[in-house]
Amino acid sequence: MFRLPEGVTYLDGNSLGPLPVAAIEAVNRTMCEEWGTELIRAWNTRGWIGKPRGLGDRIGRLIGAPAGSVVVGDTLSIKVFQALAAAIRLRPGRRVILSDNGNFPTDLYMAQGLIDLVDGGHELRTPAPEDVAAAISEDVAVVMLTEVDYRTGRLHDMPGIIRTAHAAGALVIWDLAHSAGALPVDVHGAGADFAVGCTYKYLNGGPGAPAFIYVEPGIVGSVQPALSGWLGHDAPFAFDLDYRPAAGIERMRVGTPPLLAYAALEAALMVWEDVSMADVRARSIQLSELFIAEVEARCPELELASPRDPLARGSQVSFRFPEGYAVMQALIARGVIGDFRAPDILRFGFTPLYLDEADILRAAETIGSTMQHRLWDDDAYRRKGAVT
Amino acid sequence: MFRLPEGVTYLDGNSLGPLPVAAIEAVNRTMCEEWGTELIRAWNTRGWIGKPRGLGDRIGRLIGAPAGSVVVGDTLSIKVFQALAAAIRLRPGRRVILSDNGNFPTDLYMAQGLIDLVDGGHELRTPAPEDVAAAISEDVAVVMLTEVDYRTGRLHDMPGIIRTAHAAGALVIWDLAHSAGALPVDVHGAGADFAVGCTYKYLNGGPGAPAFIYVEPGIVGSVQPALSGWLGHDAPFAFDLDYRPAAGIERMRVGTPPLLAYAALEAALMVWEDVSMADVRARSIQLSELFIAEVEARCPELELASPRDPLARGSQVSFRFPEGYAVMQALIARGVIGDFRAPDILRFGFTPLYLDEADILRAAETIGSTMQHRLWDDDAYRRKGAVT
Repeated sequence: MFRLPEGVTYLDGNSLGPLPVAAIEAVNRTMCEEWGTELIRAWNTRGWIGKPRGLGDRIGRLIGAPAGSVVVGDTLSIKVFQALAAAIRLRPGRRVILSDNGNFPTDLYMAQGLIDLVDGGHELRTPAPEDVAAAISEDVAVVMLTEVDYRTGRLHDMPGIIRTAHAAGALVIWDLAHSAGALPVDVHGAGADFAVGCTYKYLNGGPGAPAFIYVEPGIVGSVQPALSGWLGHDAPFAFDLDYRPAAGIERMRVGTPPLLAYAALEAALMVWEDVSMADVRARSIQLSELFIAEVEARCPELELASPRDPLARGSQVSFRFPEGYAVMQALIARGVIGDFRAPDILRFGFTPLYLDEADILRAAETIGSTMQHRLWDDDAYRRKGAVT
Repeated sequence: MFRLPEGVTYLDGNSLGPLPVAAIEAVNRTMCEEWGTELIRAWNTRGWIGKPRGLGDRIGRLIGAPAGSVVVGDTLSIKVFQALAAAIRLRPGRRVILSDNGNFPTDLYMAQGLIDLVDGGHELRTPAPEDVAAAISEDVAVVMLTEVDYRTGRLHDMPGIIRTAHAAGALVIWDLAHSAGALPVDVHGAGADFAVGCTYKYLNGGPGAPAFIYVEPGIVGSVQPALSGWLGHDAPFAFDLDYRPAAGIERMRVGTPPLLAYAALEAALMVWEDVSMADVRARSIQLSELFIAEVEARCPELELASPRDPLARGSQVSFRFPEGYAVMQALIARGVIGDFRAPDILRFGFTPLYLDEADILRAAETIGSTMQHRLWDDDAYRRKGAVT
């Protein structure tokens, strides 16, 4: 189902999922039989114009979102901005955006950019993740959290935080970057107001594959799009001079979508048609538990950075080690691909669609020998590249 | 060099350029040999992280932008928003965004969205295109214009408007959607402050291919990015909690770029390496002059909507006809693909990379017979699709 290179144990599907075999043909078909043959007509004849909504519905089924409440497009950073801008305008009397200091930086950066731009006295608060619930006060407009911490894998209590936030009159935005395709999510059932995520991690959509945004159907009609692009207009091809938002979730569309990327994503999402997220979660826990046991048995110097309770973490396991960067380079050189996150985190993702116990054991053995023989202790492994 | 279907005369490269043959292999290679083989490592080993800048430089050579002043990413709507948000903050005492009522709607919509979001008393003024220069007053923060009118093809006087705007203390943003790859542009020589554009029209980058943004090197260091995403950070992989913009044009990057779309664009841009924009312009004028003469000789009922002086228009020719929509459907059914723009514009683009006189004559004959025999007068041609 996926193309994985020989001799590689890939524990980094939480950073970039592997190539679905079906994506090769799907993208080639979109190029040759759609773009190359239908040219401009393909927007109608091949349904290009409806892809953001159609792919949104496919993702919706994986995160508990009703049909017509998710749309695909742009990057996760842009989707964060759209959700935040909408949220602060739905709570005009409040000035606090509450996040946490473990959130992925781009979410915080987009909030900072929005606050500076709006210049309305808003403030970004970033307590420690475990202090978020207690920090939800009556001046909070919106709580913006990533469900699964990108470094430690720690899970926030989504339903609990939503209840606390709503009781205080605040809205909640969930970043599902490390949740979608990793564990069961029920945005609608939990009462999330907004959710955003990317599709190039557990959903295997390809490098830089488009992001998605969910808006709770009860509030989408009140959302005033800040990034009011023509494809979010109620009648894009009327070419009116004045913006008028589309009725529902399509108002969160902005510009012309990159169709080749959409073709790859569509093929990647087809893989999920017969997959139960509960099964994926159960297998992921088996694999991560095995991994922790095998690594800890071999490497006492690695400190578990993820919650030990599997129900308290997402689908990744992280260890701390001062020379983590060099260790990860040494592992990659030996065919075990995870990633490093500053300052000292070795991160490994568990993706049952293409990993099994044999992979986990092989990885643990490589980690064990690398640590035991200090194979990482080499200047070549300390030289940093752009992406680590 | 391009794959064009048999029996089609494609006069819509100004809406979606055709498939460059080299793009098929380039995208396939990016999928199979980079994504599929290198996986996450490709960000370093295959230079993915530097593509937005590298492709920006390739585009820069076509629009007179120095190396390191253009970056590729997102959609044109997003790039318009970035430029506008930067511009109004560089002119804090001024409240007017000046455009024209012929501008492509998404540019106006993004301005409206920004104005509503900032809520600082800004105003969007949209005089007729010919009245823009006279409307540049001391309260104008930024003049935002599309050089080539998407309906009529009328060209703005870029250097003249920039001089007038700068004399009044205003900044200028040029949308080059219908300019890049169509005619010589010299953003740096003309003194433009910002330029934005898309790559799926004359640059043939593929459906929804990424947009680009140019910022004048003298002011880029003063630009405060409103869409402050992690890949515009000075040190994205330090994962700092606070945003700090990259030194130069890279601060206009936002999120993770769609690499498959970049691979197609890269192949499409290679085609331009040995092409002179002056030659392209000269050939485009020959073709469009021939087209006007041949169509007018056959179809007195079509009214030329483009400037008759070829130096006053871009690389397209438009005619008005009350039943323009049905006419265009009839033409497409007969293998002549142009497009329709509401309310009554038949639009034809001239792209010398893959069109010659024989194509123009064939198109003119088809248009002539369609009009003469009222072949468009059929209910089937009046039914509107989503994209027209």
